[in-house]
Amino acid sequence: MKPAHIAETEDCRQISQMLSRVGDKWSMLVVTYLGEEGMRFSELRRGIGNISQKMLTTSLRNLERDGFVKRTVLPTSPPRVDYELTDLGRELLVPVAGLADWTRENVHRIETARKEYDLLHKP
Amino acid sequence: MKPAHIAETEDCRQISQMLSRVGDKWSMLVVTYLGEEGMRFSELRRGIGNISQKMLTTSLRNLERDGFVKRTVLPTSPPRVDYELTDLGRELLVPVAGLADWTRENVHRIETARKEYDLLHKP
Repeated sequence: MKPAHIAETEDCRQISQMLSRVGDKWSMLVVTYLGEEGMRFSELRRGIGNISQKMLTTSLRNLERDGFVKRTVLPTSPPRVDYELTDLGRELLVPVAGLADWTRENVHRIETARKEYDLLHKP
Repeated sequence: MKPAHIAETEDCRQISQMLSRVGDKWSMLVVTYLGEEGMRFSELRRGIGNISQKMLTTSLRNLERDGFVKRTVLPTSPPRVDYELTDLGRELLVPVAGLADWTRENVHRIETARKEYDLLHKP
């Protein structure tokens, strides 16, 4: 009954957990922004726009823990904190960009499907 | 300051929203299971394992609304409800499988990064 390619439950759990992390909208935005160049916390926050300081801090910490982002504290006054993608983060960008491109190309089909669904399922 | 490829905020919001949906662990599992063959609700629930009835219902409804999954009620007694991927859902599987494959191949690097991070940031 269980498809062969997701037969290993532990493997499957790790992958779905990872996809949850990668699919998190703020993490995705951070990784995409850092794909261009290293940035300071304040630059990232300004660039992304409507993200809270707390949420950006959490996203960056998770991405750093997973090995996708490197955090560097420069001994200036006040200390300057830079973030950049690691090699692993740059590798991750490839399949993520594939998914983002697919979504960009198909967003209108998804929106059309939603409108049709909502018309059929009016309260 | 803002990278050119995510300059369009509305576009960007739609994509990050879509990636959140696709990255949702239960949605991912459902799409992957249905990639093999159409299934009944009970088969899906048994196959996926530790998913609640409510969560599976919600995931399937979201995927149906987005146009990825087709729901068919067969007039048996009791009524039988089948789920299968639409053409759009099958197309989505391609980049999703790319990301899943990348994750499968790199899960040990991510785990190593987490262990190193946790050692450095012990409470």
